[in-house]
Amino acid sequence: MDRDRFRDVLIATLPAGTVELDPDVIDAFSRDESAFCAPGRPWALVRPTGTEQVAATVRVCAEHGVPIVPRGAGTGVAGGAVAGDGCVILCVTRMNRIVDIDTSNLLAVVEPGVLNAELCAAAAEHGLWYPPDPASRDICSIGGNVATNAGGLCCVKYGVTREYVLGLEVVLADGSVVEVGRRTVKGVAGYDLTALFVGSEGTLGIVTRVTLRLRPPPPPAVTLTAFFDSLPEAGRAISAITAMTTPSLLEIMDATTVAAVEDWKRMDLDTGAAALILAQSDNGTGAQLDAIAAAARSAGATFVAETDDPDAGEQLLTARRLAYPALARLGTAIMNDVCVPLGSVAAAVTAIAERTQRHGVRVGTFGHAGDGNLHPTIVFDRTDPDSASRGEAAYHAMTEAALDLGGTITGEHGVGLLKRPHLARELGKGALGLHAAVKAALDPEGILNPGKIFDL
Amino acid sequence: MDRDRFRDVLIATLPAGTVELDPDVIDAFSRDESAFCAPGRPWALVRPTGTEQVAATVRVCAEHGVPIVPRGAGTGVAGGAVAGDGCVILCVTRMNRIVDIDTSNLLAVVEPGVLNAELCAAAAEHGLWYPPDPASRDICSIGGNVATNAGGLCCVKYGVTREYVLGLEVVLADGSVVEVGRRTVKGVAGYDLTALFVGSEGTLGIVTRVTLRLRPPPPPAVTLTAFFDSLPEAGRAISAITAMTTPSLLEIMDATTVAAVEDWKRMDLDTGAAALILAQSDNGTGAQLDAIAAAARSAGATFVAETDDPDAGEQLLTARRLAYPALARLGTAIMNDVCVPLGSVAAAVTAIAERTQRHGVRVGTFGHAGDGNLHPTIVFDRTDPDSASRGEAAYHAMTEAALDLGGTITGEHGVGLLKRPHLARELGKGALGLHAAVKAALDPEGILNPGKIFDL
Repeated sequence: MDRDRFRDVLIATLPAGTVELDPDVIDAFSRDESAFCAPGRPWALVRPTGTEQVAATVRVCAEHGVPIVPRGAGTGVAGGAVAGDGCVILCVTRMNRIVDIDTSNLLAVVEPGVLNAELCAAAAEHGLWYPPDPASRDICSIGGNVATNAGGLCCVKYGVTREYVLGLEVVLADGSVVEVGRRTVKGVAGYDLTALFVGSEGTLGIVTRVTLRLRPPPPPAVTLTAFFDSLPEAGRAISAITAMTTPSLLEIMDATTVAAVEDWKRMDLDTGAAALILAQSDNGTGAQLDAIAAAARSAGATFVAETDDPDAGEQLLTARRLAYPALARLGTAIMNDVCVPLGSVAAAVTAIAERTQRHGVRVGTFGHAGDGNLHPTIVFDRTDPDSASRGEAAYHAMTEAALDLGGTITGEHGVGLLKRPHLARELGKGALGLHAAVKAALDPEGILNPGKIFDL
Repeated sequence: MDRDRFRDVLIATLPAGTVELDPDVIDAFSRDESAFCAPGRPWALVRPTGTEQVAATVRVCAEHGVPIVPRGAGTGVAGGAVAGDGCVILCVTRMNRIVDIDTSNLLAVVEPGVLNAELCAAAAEHGLWYPPDPASRDICSIGGNVATNAGGLCCVKYGVTREYVLGLEVVLADGSVVEVGRRTVKGVAGYDLTALFVGSEGTLGIVTRVTLRLRPPPPPAVTLTAFFDSLPEAGRAISAITAMTTPSLLEIMDATTVAAVEDWKRMDLDTGAAALILAQSDNGTGAQLDAIAAAARSAGATFVAETDDPDAGEQLLTARRLAYPALARLGTAIMNDVCVPLGSVAAAVTAIAERTQRHGVRVGTFGHAGDGNLHPTIVFDRTDPDSASRGEAAYHAMTEAALDLGGTITGEHGVGLLKRPHLARELGKGALGLHAAVKAALDPEGILNPGKIFDL
């Protein structure tokens, strides 16, 4: 079927205002926050307001063999929502209702277009808390959080999105609507299909409703900063802390990142240090943070400060939250996302710096040290093809560095398009074959976000 | 192929001493701790000592279309390891090596036959902790914990087995060996196939090696007991506590259970109370337990006691740990395992009592109140066919009661054979179809633990 006839069918199937054909609008929805991957020319943008419209769209696409690229807020940095030629972009941001905050059962039911921060605010109104806190929480949607199994700063203690998704409503590749999961905290009736959909980046189904676990909020956190003259010392501190206790936050910033933040905001950060570690404790007692401070000093910290003033703590976290924007103001920034075993955090920061040096780009590394999850961020000049090409080479070099250290190519952002070349090495042939079998079972025609994660 | 020729092939394939044909031994390995389901006549018992022997067994079985019933210690109570006619029982208890306790990366690598308590002890020697703590931890194996996604008392704060399984080596239905997962705390490279195998009860593959996350042990716990004159009051306490804070343990025992324990051990428990709640806090401060005590009193507790003495706390937990054995000494006991939304714990205890009363069997209900996960335990007389039949009817009636309350038929024990009749109602047609698609993709000939979970 040609593009124009397909568009007519789509428009005839869906309510007025749901299908968008304006090339500029389509183009704007063909991208996400990634670099190094150019969108194609999609045939249409569909903006459904409910599950039945998603199902109808999928049925039409399935019937005509037209691929679908599902997307939410488009804050992904791995290209998972970059749309190619001849597809339908299915954007769920209009499905943004908070259906229920169930205070009796400590859960929320939301549509995928709800922003993470909106859910948090709604839960907080009822004295409850939705923990997963990606740095983009003000602008990223729950659907995307589910698609990538998003993490964040609190995950070292409270776990990632998967731990909070109790159940899902999903539109499958044939347009049928299924519910998986449950409304209970625990449950083992049948396979964990909920976990299978979480992190599947829109390649197995389109999530149209999410049942999320909520928790009581923790006591106010107390905060620690520690500076180190060398990365190995910072690494020793991270190892000592994580082997001893579970802080509610444990972040690292390297010298490049600290300098970028300090140059911008003048926060009196020690720009001579090799690394800054930030930790929080929310146990309602100072003892845990004192033990963390002692461990940092033993590991060689040159300066350690604790505060139980929430405002001061928030200000220190601001330094961490500004890491990416501070680097991004120096040029075009692309954030990577790798994760290494807990004992290799410092080695990973060092390896990333060494491997990328030869490409002549600036790299600032920061991230969730307590999870081994780092976000080395490359600054390049996108108007200079040579710089962009060196930036891309650095991106792939640091991804491989994580594999060399026994880590993974992505801790919380997903594979998308950008990391596809590295997946086979990480998974191995056997596991890749299993992925192909599962994909074929759930999307036999391969119409859901084709070419993302792997190229089957 | 007939039985004897198949046995010859199996013996020729595997090392001497690996294949057992003695009917009495086979019979002993054909059962687990379930009731109401009789084993058949398996063709052979295979007791491999390594992955290659598991793979060789599966290849022979696949070639000849002989079903395989994998099993570990056989402590399951849902019939997941009950072996039928003409199958091979594959028992992994000889694969019981702790391969690695990796203190740098806070993980353990173990074979599936390692007992939960053995892993805990090995981790403790290195100052580390493996949290999931099924009541059967001294006798249940990690392979079975993975197969059922086992829980336990600490899971209200620390999560279930799935949260600790980082990676798996699995023998697939064609005898190939694959590795899924990773050695990092976080990771989203590809589908969460690890979570798919966890809880799949041996129907998708045979786990031959497990990489598990370890944690630093928490501070010593402080313990609270609270008695209530009515179940609604206990329910209000549970709701108030879980909405306010996350204790490290929150258990409930009903009057029948308390009486069974007290009659046996004389622990000065209030046998006039309708319910006993046990809670622990391991934040290293008494403030959390004080808040829990206040919530219990507000909800109507007739007696509340706190202790920070570890021995006294352990003694109180003993009352809970004795719940099942105390009921089991009154006759034949079969423990159910249902989970309801958090607000329905008291309603579930009440509904279970009401629904089972007509069957004239004794039922004591206890369990993980903070997760909504209850273990109503039926006491009947297995030498009396009428009593057994009433016990079985009561078992199914309480399982349906959980579904009526929006819960699940199993929180942490699995579906096995016993709960198969209830699965379709819980999952619905769409999700059941998805299960069938996944099962067909991974085990197209249906040789792995056929008839368990569902009858496809």
